[in-house]
Amino acid sequence: MDILRVESSLVCTRRIEGLKQASLRVLTNVKGKRLVAVDPVGARPGNWVFVVEGSAARYAAGDFSVLTDLTIGGIIDYWETEQDEAAGAPKQKVG
Amino acid sequence: MDILRVESSLVCTRRIEGLKQASLRVLTNVKGKRLVAVDPVGARPGNWVFVVEGSAARYAAGDFSVLTDLTIGGIIDYWETEQDEAAGAPKQKVG
Amino acid sequence: MDILRVESSLVCTRRIEGLKQASLRVLTNVKGKRLVAVDPVGARPGNWVFVVEGSAARYAAGDFSVLTDLTIGGIIDYWETEQDEAAGAPKQKVG
Amino acid sequence: MDILRVESSLVCTRRIEGLKQASLRVLTNVKGKRLVAVDPVGARPGNWVFVVEGSAARYAAGDFSVLTDLTIGGIIDYWETEQDEAAGAPKQKVG
Amino acid sequence: MDILRVESSLVCTRRIEGLKQASLRVLTNVKGKRLVAVDPVGARPGNWVFVVEGSAARYAAGDFSVLTDLTIGGIIDYWETEQDEAAGAPKQKVG
Repeated sequence: MDILRVESSLVCTRRIEGLKQASLRVLTNVKGKRLVAVDPVGARPGNWVFVVEGSAARYAAGDFSVLTDLTIGGIIDYWETEQDEAAGAPKQKVG
Repeated sequence: MDILRVESSLVCTRRIEGLKQASLRVLTNVKGKRLVAVDPVGARPGNWVFVVEGSAARYAAGDFSVLTDLTIGGIIDYWETEQDEAAGAPKQKVG
Repeated sequence: MDILRVESSLVCTRRIEGLKQASLRVLTNVKGKRLVAVDPVGARPGNWVFVVEGSAARYAAGDFSVLTDLTIGGIIDYWETEQDEAAGAPKQKVG
Repeated sequence: MDILRVESSLVCTRRIEGLKQASLRVLTNVKGKRLVAVDPVGARPGNWVFVVEGSAARYAAGDFSVLTDLTIGGIIDYWETEQDEAAGAPKQKVG
Repeated sequence: MDILRVESSLVCTRRIEGLKQASLRVLTNVKGKRLVAVDPVGARPGNWVFVVEGSAARYAAGDFSVLTDLTIGGIIDYWETEQDEAAGAPKQKVG
């Protein structure tokens, strides 16, 4: 399950009905790639999270009929990227 | 769920029956990779969209029997790529 | 759904029964990566096609019990790669 | 099925209910990419393992209702990376 | 469906029950990435094979309850990589 950082919420007026009222977040991975995920745990910008893909993502959204293929699975309590480690930054409490 | 930009419609006379009358779009990601997706929301060239993959893509097409593995999930209201940001371009209203 | 070019047929005497009599093609993507796909539409070498992945690929093969995860979804009528565009090559009619 | 090395356990207080009591591990692949997986076999830091993805990952977790898309499938008894080989390191017994 | 070369068998004493007695092979793709796959066709080191992913992989293993997401689909009779072609090497009969 991939590890990404929450960047922001996503505003998307014209979207498929199947997304229902799901909250959408923009996430960024360590290479800077940006993805959209459904957020059932209330993550905030800056949080490091891991995501669930595929059919499990729909169950993880709390309602199998929510049409997502990427859902936040949890907020990681302490996370340090290689860049943090190199810079000697203190381990971030991101819960 | 990946974020891509709509490039054009795709004309494809010889295609599997399972695609039925689905509208096909050519999408491009930030690295220039081009993909084909079913479009249930009426996106136009230039729109930034996010896409749903896998079995969810068939539900998202509005009819589970449509044989797609990539369907547009929504049109993003405001989107700015890193290139836009660097160039100080105003945030595009792409809804 | 990825866009690739048909390279050749694939000869494969020892293969799982689940592939039944499916025609196998070698496809190449714009980066030169080669993949094997089931061909239900009769594509020929040089054709540009898009492919369907995952469980949809088995329906697309025309028989859900055909054990493929990649099936040609359609032959693209007109396709121009970035290289073609740069070289000013006329748009190829590849239907 | 990908081959990765176990780095550590993952502490994640706020996580979806669907993960139940599953043990979460941080795994690293040979390119340094870090992923989260459910661990049903009791792997320890330093172990080389292979992982199962997709719907099979949920069965592999021992309970199909565990919402994972990546689960450790086994601990590899002897594993040597290309770097080990180049450095002439003795094959590691990592079972 | 990806094309890889069989490198060796994989010894894995501590593995999930769901793998039953399936034979495991280490495969290498043209970029040197190594993967583990279930082998239902008796491939030997040096054989070029194509693999089936996802839920189809479990059917391809001959028993849907075998928890794999990658299974060898067939042994390719004649295969030539770009390196072989460049070196003018005779097409390898690898059946």
